Amino acid sequence: MYVLIVYDIKVNRVNKVKAFLRQHLYWVQNSVFEGELSKSQYQKVNSGLKKIIKKDEDSIIIYKFPFDNPNKEILGIEKAPIDEIL
Amino acid sequence: MYVLIVYDIKVNRVNKVKAFLRQHLYWVQNSVFEGELSKSQYQKVNSGLKKIIKKDEDSIIIYKFPFDNPNKEILGIEKAPIDEIL
Repeated sequence: MYVLIVYDIKVNRVNKVKAFLRQHLYWVQNSVFEGELSKSQYQKVNSGLKKIIKKDEDSIIIYKFPFDNPNKEILGIEKAPIDEIL
Repeated sequence: MYVLIVYDIKVNRVNKVKAFLRQHLYWVQNSVFEGELSKSQYQKVNSGLKKIIKKDEDSIIIYKFPFDNPNKEILGIEKAPIDEIL
């Protein structure tokens, strides 16, 4: 599945979250990662994040797309063009 | 269509972007809005944002979902539960 993760994490944990997500997904913008994950990779990311965050202080939203390439449009700067990374 | 908008805007324009998006969509997290838009509403949002941002300094990504309710999972705090707003 293709996932998009947006997060709002307290400053003392944000680098840990970023470093963890970078192992599995692509950074696309400040506090936004996206990429393709298998079901088992998804479980790994999900449980890994749960271990890092504090449930009552941090917030993460994971959007799941049923197709590989989400329909997206960019206005302004493309911070991290995924096409160049892949 | 259902859209999700994430933005990274220079501080002097960020409140303008927020106020504009609040007229059309729901705030779900720091720098993230989502909601249902008709094609004409989408055009309005798109061109409105283009008027506010500076193309070489700001970045907005608009994800379009083909269905009304994106498949999403929340870890930690749900900052703005959409169900309560609707």
